[in-house]
Amino acid sequence: MIVYERPIRFEDVDAAGIVFFARYLTYAHEAMEHFFEAADGRYVGLITERRIGLPAVRVEVDYRAPLRYGDVLRIETSCEKIGNKSAVLLYRMFRANDSVLAAEIRHTVVTTSLVALKSCEMPEDVRRQLEAHRVGE
Amino acid sequence: MIVYERPIRFEDVDAAGIVFFARYLTYAHEAMEHFFEAADGRYVGLITERRIGLPAVRVEVDYRAPLRYGDVLRIETSCEKIGNKSAVLLYRMFRANDSVLAAEIRHTVVTTSLVALKSCEMPEDVRRQLEAHRVGE
Amino acid sequence: MIVYERPIRFEDVDAAGIVFFARYLTYAHEAMEHFFEAADGRYVGLITERRIGLPAVRVEVDYRAPLRYGDVLRIETSCEKIGNKSAVLLYRMFRANDSVLAAEIRHTVVTTSLVALKSCEMPEDVRRQLEAHRVGE
Amino acid sequence: MIVYERPIRFEDVDAAGIVFFARYLTYAHEAMEHFFEAADGRYVGLITERRIGLPAVRVEVDYRAPLRYGDVLRIETSCEKIGNKSAVLLYRMFRANDSVLAAEIRHTVVTTSLVALKSCEMPEDVRRQLEAHRVGE
Repeated sequence: MIVYERPIRFEDVDAAGIVFFARYLTYAHEAMEHFFEAADGRYVGLITERRIGLPAVRVEVDYRAPLRYGDVLRIETSCEKIGNKSAVLLYRMFRANDSVLAAEIRHTVVTTSLVALKSCEMPEDVRRQLEAHRVGE
Repeated sequence: MIVYERPIRFEDVDAAGIVFFARYLTYAHEAMEHFFEAADGRYVGLITERRIGLPAVRVEVDYRAPLRYGDVLRIETSCEKIGNKSAVLLYRMFRANDSVLAAEIRHTVVTTSLVALKSCEMPEDVRRQLEAHRVGE
Repeated sequence: MIVYERPIRFEDVDAAGIVFFARYLTYAHEAMEHFFEAADGRYVGLITERRIGLPAVRVEVDYRAPLRYGDVLRIETSCEKIGNKSAVLLYRMFRANDSVLAAEIRHTVVTTSLVALKSCEMPEDVRRQLEAHRVGE
Repeated sequence: MIVYERPIRFEDVDAAGIVFFARYLTYAHEAMEHFFEAADGRYVGLITERRIGLPAVRVEVDYRAPLRYGDVLRIETSCEKIGNKSAVLLYRMFRANDSVLAAEIRHTVVTTSLVALKSCEMPEDVRRQLEAHRVGE
């Protein structure tokens, strides 16, 4: 499990005064970038130099508690499943201020050549980082 | 089923050159606003005057085909389930140019008082619009 | 002058309850895309096929009146100046509901090869569209 | 001058492959929030508890060099002018990797009651923080 914290931004809320539901996926992506920071294959290099991406094929979000401007989000990222070319990342998002679970996201990604836009073998460093932070389903 | 079309915007893509996965939820929300345009309870009035919102409690997205700048999205919105205070909206998103299914989204919302931030009875006009566009599960 | 209308979106507001100041530039960009729709050189084709972009070198925004969720924006786009490789676009943004001027934006763009990321001669169709909608400074 | 650093995000770029011009204002706003972090009047508290905002009345952006995914932005924030109810914030944005000036933004804000949506006296702690980081014009 790798932890990533980020504040809720002024512009993250919507006309109902709480964080817009799409932004949770933006937070998840930031946490994923952070997750791979620790591996050989930094996410930026993966995308821009090695031209391998991790596009989503499926996402499930359970929204548990609203988030507001001024909250700080604590995201715990781990890996729930690993296949040949795919993996399921799990993000547990907590309000850091009161430890309430705000959302749980399951994010299925497929290692993909950004040149061919076809799935490709999972790079070893990506797999290693996922294995290192695997949790039981 | 109610149809909503919108172009993919210049800024909707990410560093991989395809539409960022979080934006599909923004598209879904636009389609939902459009869906309720046809009902008494226009979405804007629901939020700003009647102070009733439809926050998500769960979202499932299946990403089927990438979207790019210049594509036009055709979203077919219907309702898959209706409960006392909740409903499941189904969005089928097609690339209008070649009719390829780009994504399928299931979006569970709960009618909620934005004053109390608690679930509330579903307004009759909201229910009517959902019933009118109900599809089998 | 070419007119473009768009609703203010649910997620366009910020924690102060009015449209976030950065979004006005997103609206301007949409209006610019719409402005070039009418020309040979549709903006999408310009970017993705001809690989010529119009990046900003300068932007000036005067914010006159706040915008809220539910407002509709009417944007009048014209051209204030044309040079060899640059032009100044003028966007006058009105709340369509009450005709109040919400913002005025001056947007200096430079025709740029997206391959070389260097300024390039302004394509004739781009120039023609700008000339056709020129206003006095 | 107060320094704020943040990475360019995966989703910050546009279909031309460089950071979308509107996002620079989002970066500026983050830097402004950070700027007031150091004062009594943390920006969050200002907005959500004291109900005083700093909406923009004018913005000038000079775009000097493109930004790409993977760049890190270093923003130096200072204050160029202070009036009774308004101030001009200056953001100098550098690519941290090569120290190239990417953009310069002048941001005129007016202290505003978010209850009345009218300008109001500048709170003393806000003024103090601005004075402490004042630079010559």
